[in-house]
Amino acid sequence: MKITMAHGSGGKATSDLIKNIFAKHLHNPVLARMEDSAVVKGANIIAMTTDSFVVTPLFFKGGDIGKLAVCGTVNDLAMSGAVPKYLTCGFILEESADTDDIERIVISMAMTAIEAGVIFVAGDTKVIEGKGGIYLNTSGVGFLSGNENISSANCKQGDVVILSGNLGDHHATILSARMNITNSIESDCAPLNEITKKLLENSIRIKFMRDVTRGGLATVLNEFAVSSKCCIMLQEEHIPVLEQVRGFCDILGLDPIYMGNEGKMVSIVAREDAQKALDIIRSCRYGENAAIVGEVISGEENTVLMKTSVGGTRIVPELFGESLPRIC
Amino acid sequence: MKITMAHGSGGKATSDLIKNIFAKHLHNPVLARMEDSAVVKGANIIAMTTDSFVVTPLFFKGGDIGKLAVCGTVNDLAMSGAVPKYLTCGFILEESADTDDIERIVISMAMTAIEAGVIFVAGDTKVIEGKGGIYLNTSGVGFLSGNENISSANCKQGDVVILSGNLGDHHATILSARMNITNSIESDCAPLNEITKKLLENSIRIKFMRDVTRGGLATVLNEFAVSSKCCIMLQEEHIPVLEQVRGFCDILGLDPIYMGNEGKMVSIVAREDAQKALDIIRSCRYGENAAIVGEVISGEENTVLMKTSVGGTRIVPELFGESLPRIC
Repeated sequence: MKITMAHGSGGKATSDLIKNIFAKHLHNPVLARMEDSAVVKGANIIAMTTDSFVVTPLFFKGGDIGKLAVCGTVNDLAMSGAVPKYLTCGFILEESADTDDIERIVISMAMTAIEAGVIFVAGDTKVIEGKGGIYLNTSGVGFLSGNENISSANCKQGDVVILSGNLGDHHATILSARMNITNSIESDCAPLNEITKKLLENSIRIKFMRDVTRGGLATVLNEFAVSSKCCIMLQEEHIPVLEQVRGFCDILGLDPIYMGNEGKMVSIVAREDAQKALDIIRSCRYGENAAIVGEVISGEENTVLMKTSVGGTRIVPELFGESLPRIC
Repeated sequence: MKITMAHGSGGKATSDLIKNIFAKHLHNPVLARMEDSAVVKGANIIAMTTDSFVVTPLFFKGGDIGKLAVCGTVNDLAMSGAVPKYLTCGFILEESADTDDIERIVISMAMTAIEAGVIFVAGDTKVIEGKGGIYLNTSGVGFLSGNENISSANCKQGDVVILSGNLGDHHATILSARMNITNSIESDCAPLNEITKKLLENSIRIKFMRDVTRGGLATVLNEFAVSSKCCIMLQEEHIPVLEQVRGFCDILGLDPIYMGNEGKMVSIVAREDAQKALDIIRSCRYGENAAIVGEVISGEENTVLMKTSVGGTRIVPELFGESLPRIC
């Protein structure tokens, strides 16, 4: 069936869409109440986040817009130290969007939500004119205990930069799909809340955690360097990149540290805890290829440097310009 | 300035847009931390909601998409009995959207947030191809004490239906703008959380509260009739409609009970509390024209009926079809 403007009216067509697709697959006792607001158990300290998703194509190797939308919001919550709990989803559908595609996306959201341990508690659907595009917003709430030990204020020389795995997979997957290139590269799209939970449970002294999405590792670390007034030195040869992704980048002149990922995080931890943290991350699903890729050094504030594979040192600025549009 | 794909990259252009428009006008200590997730004080019971906004035109008499986005989410939270606290906003911008328009919208969001007593704690921006369209998602969290006295399970014969004011203003405003009709009609777009707060503070026995948006009063009451298995009788002549809106509807063959509003709510309260509730609502801003418009009767379950102005009785079904597309 094709979406029409009537599906956004708030009347019978909207409620049929909700019943036959959204509620069917995302079912849980809270959503079943079908109220405009969900009333749920809270916590003394909560984390809140929002993300919209406009990725094209909607379906790609290793994932789809629905999986992406759950992982993106779960990961933002997890990076603050929170345990992700509740998600909301807002669909903006273009006229003539296919309800079979929507159902596939919603099933993917439901499966990813189960893996990440979150439930969808509220949703909304709007329809606009267009050519069948599907856009998605997920917002989320997570709980904090107040004992999370994350503080960039404590950042100091010797702190260690740990990357949870190889860079560039998601970016290379989307670009390959758009260029009709056939290869074995798959998106890394994944929920990272098991990793953050275990780091916190093991009292790792974390100075910073962030998922490495749009803008890539270079942009994320520049933001941290500025906010904490420190200098970071990366070791290029320690940054994990899959061989097929490396080849893809070489051909197209791409730099993995500027490429977007959807299942990778970077953490900066106290030097004494670095090996333990690395072991924990490697023991988790999605953290198997984790590596120590740099450290905080005594150098120019607000700066990210990189020791290159050929032995030189260069400044690594944040991403300027557009990178790959609509990667998430 | 015109929006380009670079503004959605997550790099420098994105952060400039955030700094120069979003953070500038929505500034507060939480947002100032510029984290992907906001960490805030919570509560034992919370309400969560989400809504996307695709209204066209973006600016209309009495409001704009930004004011709408704040009121819509604040009102959904308020109707659950919650005190609205935190909002997030996700912008989906089409290429060539005007940053002056975006700034006007964000200023409007900021002013409405102040009136409603909420703060924006997190945001996101994505850019898609297109012709300058602006779409907006707001999600929100509100706090409940657990002592809110709202229960549709207690709904019984004699309960009274109170409408907080005149119907049809927003719908008629949007339609007038699209048809290039000049008249004095203005959108009713407004936050209703003062009304819900006062009703709860005064221990009114509330069976149901809902803002009357897409689908209109008819659809909202049908949903309630079905969920509570009751029968509602409306009195057509008691339903307030402004004279100029009535004239507009007569000419176009529109029925105000199916028209969308953005600053109206309907409540169903115990008969003994009806006059007190009406007085409270009338004492609040945006509730001055409140009226008792019907009651729960002993009749066919799941049904809404209306005693018409000419003395007959008719069944009032929910909205079927599309009504006015992109009204919010």
